[in-house]
Amino acid sequence: MTQCEFASNHKVTPLMRKIARNEGVSAKIIAKLIAEGKIVILNNNQKEIRNPCAVGKGLRTKINANIGTSSDCIEIKDELEKLEVSIKYGADAVMDLSVAGDLQKIRKKIIDNSSVPVGTVPVYESAVIASLRKGTFLNMTKEDIFDVLEAQARQGVDFFTIHAGINIASLKVLKRSKRILDIVSRGGAILACWMNYHKKENPYYEYFDQILDIAYRYDITLSLGDALRPGSVCDATDEAQIYELKILAQLAERARKKKVSVIIEGPGHVPLHQIPKNIILQKKICKGIPFYVLGPLVTDIGMPYDHISAAIGGAIAASYGADFLCYVTPAEHLRHPTLEDVKDGVIASRIAAHAADLAKGVKSAWRKDKKISLYRKKRDWAKQIAFCVDPKKAFSYRSLFKLADSKVCTMCGKYCSIKLFEDYCR
Amino acid sequence: MTQCEFASNHKVTPLMRKIARNEGVSAKIIAKLIAEGKIVILNNNQKEIRNPCAVGKGLRTKINANIGTSSDCIEIKDELEKLEVSIKYGADAVMDLSVAGDLQKIRKKIIDNSSVPVGTVPVYESAVIASLRKGTFLNMTKEDIFDVLEAQARQGVDFFTIHAGINIASLKVLKRSKRILDIVSRGGAILACWMNYHKKENPYYEYFDQILDIAYRYDITLSLGDALRPGSVCDATDEAQIYELKILAQLAERARKKKVSVIIEGPGHVPLHQIPKNIILQKKICKGIPFYVLGPLVTDIGMPYDHISAAIGGAIAASYGADFLCYVTPAEHLRHPTLEDVKDGVIASRIAAHAADLAKGVKSAWRKDKKISLYRKKRDWAKQIAFCVDPKKAFSYRSLFKLADSKVCTMCGKYCSIKLFEDYCR
Repeated sequence: MTQCEFASNHKVTPLMRKIARNEGVSAKIIAKLIAEGKIVILNNNQKEIRNPCAVGKGLRTKINANIGTSSDCIEIKDELEKLEVSIKYGADAVMDLSVAGDLQKIRKKIIDNSSVPVGTVPVYESAVIASLRKGTFLNMTKEDIFDVLEAQARQGVDFFTIHAGINIASLKVLKRSKRILDIVSRGGAILACWMNYHKKENPYYEYFDQILDIAYRYDITLSLGDALRPGSVCDATDEAQIYELKILAQLAERARKKKVSVIIEGPGHVPLHQIPKNIILQKKICKGIPFYVLGPLVTDIGMPYDHISAAIGGAIAASYGADFLCYVTPAEHLRHPTLEDVKDGVIASRIAAHAADLAKGVKSAWRKDKKISLYRKKRDWAKQIAFCVDPKKAFSYRSLFKLADSKVCTMCGKYCSIKLFEDYCR
Repeated sequence: MTQCEFASNHKVTPLMRKIARNEGVSAKIIAKLIAEGKIVILNNNQKEIRNPCAVGKGLRTKINANIGTSSDCIEIKDELEKLEVSIKYGADAVMDLSVAGDLQKIRKKIIDNSSVPVGTVPVYESAVIASLRKGTFLNMTKEDIFDVLEAQARQGVDFFTIHAGINIASLKVLKRSKRILDIVSRGGAILACWMNYHKKENPYYEYFDQILDIAYRYDITLSLGDALRPGSVCDATDEAQIYELKILAQLAERARKKKVSVIIEGPGHVPLHQIPKNIILQKKICKGIPFYVLGPLVTDIGMPYDHISAAIGGAIAASYGADFLCYVTPAEHLRHPTLEDVKDGVIASRIAAHAADLAKGVKSAWRKDKKISLYRKKRDWAKQIAFCVDPKKAFSYRSLFKLADSKVCTMCGKYCSIKLFEDYCR
């Protein structure tokens, strides 16, 4: 039975109890919201995760870090370091997006070394296999697709991004649209090309029930990918995007009926005033199913600071109800991310999620800010620093200039407002 | 006559026309909004600024970078480099917050080298002078305060932060409040200590009319500082903050009557869901007078990434109508900022202001995003990079890994979604 099924039968599982403890929410409420599809646990029943992660209503906003090889950067070691850094700085889940090297081996290493759930975009591996064995990803068959899904599920992947929303109908809507950047989703582009070449329906859409069967057997969460997410703020909230969202809502409904955990992926590049309506629309159309957004990036001009553009968008999105933020690194649009890029991306996303949690009224988030503020009042830099997002870097920042007085900082020196008030106004 | 007075007399000045051209707004509208107090031009009639800056309704969101020496870092050269970098990366104004070294000389160098308006917090110099000549800033007299105002005005300072909102009444409200961090404004703390020590009213409040006379004579903009801004999200939007805001509104009204340009300063640390109401409240209470916010920082835990916490808050604030963002650097709460910190702070603030401008419908902002997106579609990295916020850094990012194909990036390589679509779906 899946967690979803247990919950529908009013059973509270040990996993739900663990989540409940971590979140400070009652296990019964967790179970009820899982039954309603408003919370999912990213989880594969083939293994146990040290830090399981639930996504959805009333929970802390979660963040995901994408790692994995690219055709230009294939060192497994580098990607494992990124895994470690991602988790260290607060990633609640990671996705292995490898497209080069021994994919099975890389994935196994990542799964074995990860204390948090691991997701993938299985079409990448299907495309890579077809390309290697048959000369081009266009020769990918239904079997290539399902063999990979089954193998990855068996290996212990916790959530799959499935681009089933790009179908003949939505591709037609895209093609007649006037958007600037047609498809900026790698998986979406692979499938659109395949469909266009074969003049056939997207197998992920056509055989969605078979995907549900696999997800059900392994209790894997399906993350319904948005192949038609906008890649420019000029394209945001357009017909193609919303048309696909409606398809995703229907597919999600089918997943729910089969007791498969499901979440919906969202944009992308969205100007900030459109973010609230994007979130509200998804929550309405998809009946409260968790929303997993990539960014959103609030401008297209931010290179190489797209982690900041995404932190702005992510904070707003999560404060309006997005449940899961996919990080964006400073390398976005420019290169395969380095270890430092990954760290910067995770921290920016962590700040965005935390800021949204304050807005959502998450008590554990408020406790953190209060604690730091109390130490700040005492001018206890050691403790302030110990509880901030990056203690090591904060410490090195503070230590750069020689301090005349260790109870102030070099910005205000003897004119430290906190010290002045303490000395003369108490 | 001040710009404000010209505008009230339905006169359009050359300076207004220059602003109008830069902003793509008609000079008549600029004059009308100046007359209504909804736009100010940061300007001192003793000099001409190469890039004058107007702040307010219907204009691009402006950003300010704070530079200047501290007691631990007194190199003028460093601060002049920061000035250069600030302007290069998009600061529309700078504030010289120096509190150590030869203040007059530093300020002169900054004014002489700045192509954008220069602001100050004059109480710093008055306190420093009193401290040097009379042993402690507490011995500062009314004369010390007015001598500095007059001298700085004559020197060509374009806008003054005046902490006139902290008076006997608001200090009493603060003292009975339960906020964690009493005063986090340096100028505010200096004045609160002075008031508490002498048991006297704040001279900036008591002799506000004399300040207006100086501002009028030099056509300087008064930026009414918020001494009681919250320094923790836990303290945001509390009684002390709002009480002071109401005083600032009254003072602004007095400035308006004397045809002195005036803007209001705002928080500070504010959880993101409270930002809209903070902006709406200021705009209502202060009758549309421009709002200059510091951050706001949406969390207290962000060290040493407070530029990101502030970018989130600044983008939201500006999208709701804040007109002028004071940058926050990664060094905030930790140290005197380095050149790199200043650059990072300016860029984060620039992204926030730009994102807000997209939300506000500023046409020049939309043109930038569209241009980059069109180059992105063509996979023209040279041009994409040329128009982003930091072309040099973006170029070095892209060049780190060897490219197998110069028309893609190392992230997706041959699976570049834009290339795939172009090759197989067109």
